Amino acid sequence: MSAQLGNLFILAAPSGAGKSSLIKALLEKHDTADAYPMQVSVSHTTRLPRPGEVDGVHYHFVSRQQFEELIELGVFFEWAEVFGNYYGTSRVTIEQTLHQGTDVFLDIDWQGARQVKKLLPDACGIFILPPSTAVLKERLNKRGQDSDEVIAARMQEAVSEMSHYNEFDYVLVNDDFATALGDLESVVRAHRQRTSKQKMRHTDLLQDLLGDQSTDECE
Amino acid sequence: MSAQLGNLFILAAPSGAGKSSLIKALLEKHDTADAYPMQVSVSHTTRLPRPGEVDGVHYHFVSRQQFEELIELGVFFEWAEVFGNYYGTSRVTIEQTLHQGTDVFLDIDWQGARQVKKLLPDACGIFILPPSTAVLKERLNKRGQDSDEVIAARMQEAVSEMSHYNEFDYVLVNDDFATALGDLESVVRAHRQRTSKQKMRHTDLLQDLLGDQSTDECE
Repeated sequence: MSAQLGNLFILAAPSGAGKSSLIKALLEKHDTADAYPMQVSVSHTTRLPRPGEVDGVHYHFVSRQQFEELIELGVFFEWAEVFGNYYGTSRVTIEQTLHQGTDVFLDIDWQGARQVKKLLPDACGIFILPPSTAVLKERLNKRGQDSDEVIAARMQEAVSEMSHYNEFDYVLVNDDFATALGDLESVVRAHRQRTSKQKMRHTDLLQDLLGDQSTDECE
Repeated sequence: MSAQLGNLFILAAPSGAGKSSLIKALLEKHDTADAYPMQVSVSHTTRLPRPGEVDGVHYHFVSRQQFEELIELGVFFEWAEVFGNYYGTSRVTIEQTLHQGTDVFLDIDWQGARQVKKLLPDACGIFILPPSTAVLKERLNKRGQDSDEVIAARMQEAVSEMSHYNEFDYVLVNDDFATALGDLESVVRAHRQRTSKQKMRHTDLLQDLLGDQSTDECE
């Protein structure tokens, strides 16, 4: 894969950690003012759009035949068939977006994260943890009036997901939402300052400052 | 070296890039309110304190005999004798500060940076660039009414230092000071969220969330 100006951020978390709210808040905050565009990765699906859903925003809506052709072409990082509909994350779409200099956020579980990281090692993995078991239980409970068994099953699933935090580059603890959002912003902003990215972004400046030495590889 | 909660940040730049002002502004901004203490690394010297200089703040003032004993003990990353006085950066002092959970900023040149990075690979290298050759020239000129030759020599030294930007993890461009300060803050804040650090900081939380799995090493 050739060098890409945009950064890919893979975010994973147990449900109840507040991952989706954090991504949403980050993108809203930096909607237009930011010189660095960013977007959430949009999946492909064969299910029909629901009222209000926009093609290319909520999903890339395609036919079964189109989806199967994309599978054949090896376009997807991962895909699955759920209740008779295909869902997939397109590697090609993500790479094109990164090439345009847009940062991409991938909302995914640890298994998907591992797969993406294997194919795009430059991707930045971020795991979000809840501040305590008590708070997690409360958050999972608030989703409805579920039985103890259902809550227990969700907790077990959450623990299973969290047991993989160690495979990620960063761990954010979502205790105070504003603090966690600030932490996430910092990781994103810092990643843009990495030497490999700055080298691409500031070729003219480096040429101005260093002339022919600007592209020398140091040991 | 055992695991350390604090982060070591190595900052290098050509003179005129604004490195010292950035470090000063960062530390002033986060003086007391921050839950993460930080400080600039304090060098050892055998020269006498000047009026207003405080031992342990501006330098660790030691006798020649003490300094030579420290050299023998292998305490220094690097040391030099300049105009009859010793100057050195103590590895032991830095490691102790990091162990206390304090982030340390090391204001150093590329040669020192390379040496420190070799001994402490976990250190985060940050290189600061000026926004253009024209601005750099202006900043180097403003230091006094120097001859063209003196300015030219300074520029050459600056280019020589800048040619090593590629050995650092991050590159910040100090065009707008507030933006560069924000970039530096982001790198510092992001580094605290790295999984290796969070694992040390949040042992209780991980134990609460994961029980025995909290210290498992994932592949």
